[in-house]
Amino acid sequence: MDLKGRDLICTQEWSKEALDEVLRLAKAMKADRFGERWTSLLMHKTFLMFFYNPSVRTRLSFEAAMTELGGHAQYLTESAGRFKTATKAGETVEDAAQVMARYAAGIGIRILEDKVPYYGAGDEMIREYAKWADVPVISMAHDKYHPCQGLADMMGWQEWLGEDLKGKNFLLTWASGALARSWSSVQEALLVASRYGMNVTIARPEGYDLDPKVIEWTRSNCELNGASFREIDDSEAGYEGAHVVYSRNWVTPEAYKDGAFNKQGEIEKAMAYTGWTTTAARMAMTDNAIFTHPMPVDRGTEVADEVASGPRSCIYDVAENRLHVQKAIMALTLA
Amino acid sequence: MDLKGRDLICTQEWSKEALDEVLRLAKAMKADRFGERWTSLLMHKTFLMFFYNPSVRTRLSFEAAMTELGGHAQYLTESAGRFKTATKAGETVEDAAQVMARYAAGIGIRILEDKVPYYGAGDEMIREYAKWADVPVISMAHDKYHPCQGLADMMGWQEWLGEDLKGKNFLLTWASGALARSWSSVQEALLVASRYGMNVTIARPEGYDLDPKVIEWTRSNCELNGASFREIDDSEAGYEGAHVVYSRNWVTPEAYKDGAFNKQGEIEKAMAYTGWTTTAARMAMTDNAIFTHPMPVDRGTEVADEVASGPRSCIYDVAENRLHVQKAIMALTLA
Amino acid sequence: MDLKGRDLICTQEWSKEALDEVLRLAKAMKADRFGERWTSLLMHKTFLMFFYNPSVRTRLSFEAAMTELGGHAQYLTESAGRFKTATKAGETVEDAAQVMARYAAGIGIRILEDKVPYYGAGDEMIREYAKWADVPVISMAHDKYHPCQGLADMMGWQEWLGEDLKGKNFLLTWASGALARSWSSVQEALLVASRYGMNVTIARPEGYDLDPKVIEWTRSNCELNGASFREIDDSEAGYEGAHVVYSRNWVTPEAYKDGAFNKQGEIEKAMAYTGWTTTAARMAMTDNAIFTHPMPVDRGTEVADEVASGPRSCIYDVAENRLHVQKAIMALTLA
Repeated sequence: MDLKGRDLICTQEWSKEALDEVLRLAKAMKADRFGERWTSLLMHKTFLMFFYNPSVRTRLSFEAAMTELGGHAQYLTESAGRFKTATKAGETVEDAAQVMARYAAGIGIRILEDKVPYYGAGDEMIREYAKWADVPVISMAHDKYHPCQGLADMMGWQEWLGEDLKGKNFLLTWASGALARSWSSVQEALLVASRYGMNVTIARPEGYDLDPKVIEWTRSNCELNGASFREIDDSEAGYEGAHVVYSRNWVTPEAYKDGAFNKQGEIEKAMAYTGWTTTAARMAMTDNAIFTHPMPVDRGTEVADEVASGPRSCIYDVAENRLHVQKAIMALTLA
Repeated sequence: MDLKGRDLICTQEWSKEALDEVLRLAKAMKADRFGERWTSLLMHKTFLMFFYNPSVRTRLSFEAAMTELGGHAQYLTESAGRFKTATKAGETVEDAAQVMARYAAGIGIRILEDKVPYYGAGDEMIREYAKWADVPVISMAHDKYHPCQGLADMMGWQEWLGEDLKGKNFLLTWASGALARSWSSVQEALLVASRYGMNVTIARPEGYDLDPKVIEWTRSNCELNGASFREIDDSEAGYEGAHVVYSRNWVTPEAYKDGAFNKQGEIEKAMAYTGWTTTAARMAMTDNAIFTHPMPVDRGTEVADEVASGPRSCIYDVAENRLHVQKAIMALTLA
Repeated sequence: MDLKGRDLICTQEWSKEALDEVLRLAKAMKADRFGERWTSLLMHKTFLMFFYNPSVRTRLSFEAAMTELGGHAQYLTESAGRFKTATKAGETVEDAAQVMARYAAGIGIRILEDKVPYYGAGDEMIREYAKWADVPVISMAHDKYHPCQGLADMMGWQEWLGEDLKGKNFLLTWASGALARSWSSVQEALLVASRYGMNVTIARPEGYDLDPKVIEWTRSNCELNGASFREIDDSEAGYEGAHVVYSRNWVTPEAYKDGAFNKQGEIEKAMAYTGWTTTAARMAMTDNAIFTHPMPVDRGTEVADEVASGPRSCIYDVAENRLHVQKAIMALTLA
């Protein structure tokens, strides 16, 4: 399977076989982390990490990934330059992307809600970079998707539950909290869970719908795999029989107002829904489910400490898998 | 030619043979970018990039250059420390430079107008670093000069027009805009163009003179090569018969006021001169000239989109050449 | 001696043999800086430098150290994430440390007075990281200790005065100035000087006591070695017969007030004590002492220029030794 030169903006745009290939390679790399098979794959090559939004996990894992592949990841923040965005003048994407592609073998971009005037503007910008750069562009999380997180999630779930997740029950539940979190991670999780044949339940308070296009994709992925799909507004019912529980706060579709992300408004809205927390009692209703989360965890609010730090928590494994998945993606697309 | 240990602060201070050597090596490196001849030249060595002013192109290209030579470029900003400058207390250059030289095989410094109290203070500071550091100091652009840009320009022009530029017509024209730009790139371009035997025309509104010393050097370089030199204040006449067109905004000699760079005042002054823009109509007056610019481009103001993105634009090649030229410079001075 | 996996938070917690081993290896590495014996020791490995406080020397020396050992040091600042601290909500150390340990082979942490609510809170935080991370945690200076500086000091003194410092006279003197400096470097210097058998004199104005536990350790180290220990409040007497003079400003034990570091208050307090400066006249009272300082030097206030730049100043050697000592520490604990 030749993935050289491919952009990765959303897993839904890659074939199931391509995703399998990433996971296969990521697991091989994890099993033999510093093996000579990998450490020269991107020797002397540069991956440019371009952050409109800062990040710890994403930056550390991409930078370590390049070090382990023999290359180097550069850390660039938007504030270092004078870049044109939807809301301010500056260097065009046409110019910035074409120059970056002369220096780097690949470009990662992270741009979240608070840096764009409307939902989807980050996705448009990342695709404009991909249009002008003749090297692969990889989303490091943007307003719509987070493909590296989705693949790390799937890798972790497979490690804990076995390769074949067909027919396993995936619960994605909204969680209480004052963080006004992005849709990117949870949407990507829906897409990969449904691509891999899981029965999908989304539990959220009324009004907390996600992107209709992602829901549509998820529903059709489920259908294709003969799996079930449902959306419920009950904070407890979804736990029944679940194999994977994913609880996380996110914003409503009304998050953007007057051309900007209305974080404070979303926080206030969320305050009305307390008790959407993954507790040990709720986990006891599941079919011995694992608990998954892309981190950072809002402990006590999204999930109880005893669950997050408990024996069925796969959060650190999933976090580690970011490294392996990204090594695999970069090896396949850049090398 | 042994350039080991040499500082590079302005191309005029290097012999023509030394500049030729840089360009020769840069072209060889470009033709064989990851060739084993180069990838161990600075193995395990550190180049320290010290930025008083942030930059994208300069940072990306130097950092990639070190990665490709087997070493690593560290990114340091002034704000990370408590450095003494012309305007505030802190660690002396004597101390900072001597310590840096213990860790790094070479030091790059970028310091522009808005960080110094008067024109030339950046140049003085870079020379003070060079005095105390017993490793090469390379300008990554300062208030007076930008040698790496000048060499990347020349490499691009030679790629497009052939090695021998003797007798070719170089137009450097001031351009409209609200950016109050530095003299460093355009002054270095004048120096390299005249060193390589081009006929030089500077077009600018009255009052937009550059550093008299640079003009004097340029004039005498031209004389030495039997080439012509002129300064005009017409926004169109210079295009006639040009082979290389370089349009860019810059400030007046009155840019410093009361011990600081008066950016706002310069922007207001520049507003009086609209229409100093490189358009397709003006390019049609040339002898099939290429369009060159050190980027970022102020599109629509310095140059029309159709020219900047047109078939005779060498801007991305010149940007790429920053990488190759800097690899060559570091290989020759640090290795 | 197997030091693999060991944390380094304070030299007092390592055996004398372990410190000797670090110094022996550091000297061998300095004598053969890019020798093939060392350049692959941490090949493709990541060291995470986590800065609550910025730094120049520490960052440059750790990053160069990893480059020279074949690996890479990542630069992370607290502001890049949403970390929980003693004074604000965010990701717990339990989570942050466990994830970091999945990516990095070792973690360095720097956290000084102005980032913690009380003396010792930085030490507690670094130990909490060490508790959760199953890779070595190395202090890159915190409110209590600075082990890498202490070892670099000792290495420099041995280079200048010979391996055996038993019976040599070490003067640590408080110095005038408006910098309200940390106790970490001077406390670590007391510990290493007394571990290596030096007679210790601390000279400081009344009220400028250091941590009683460090004083107790220093006193008992001296006793164990048959060396003398004294604290005096005279700004001159301590120079008599000294072999190593270390002058540096530091704060009083009252530096914290109402849950924060009271820098301005400490600066005002220090202004009452002018004349605590190492001058050539005072150096003339010594037994041809060397002058040492962890830098940056507050010239003219902590020490006269003629001493800091004089023939018996070891400050640049000590600064360089940071690199070699840290290479040795990382090689021994991470490899």
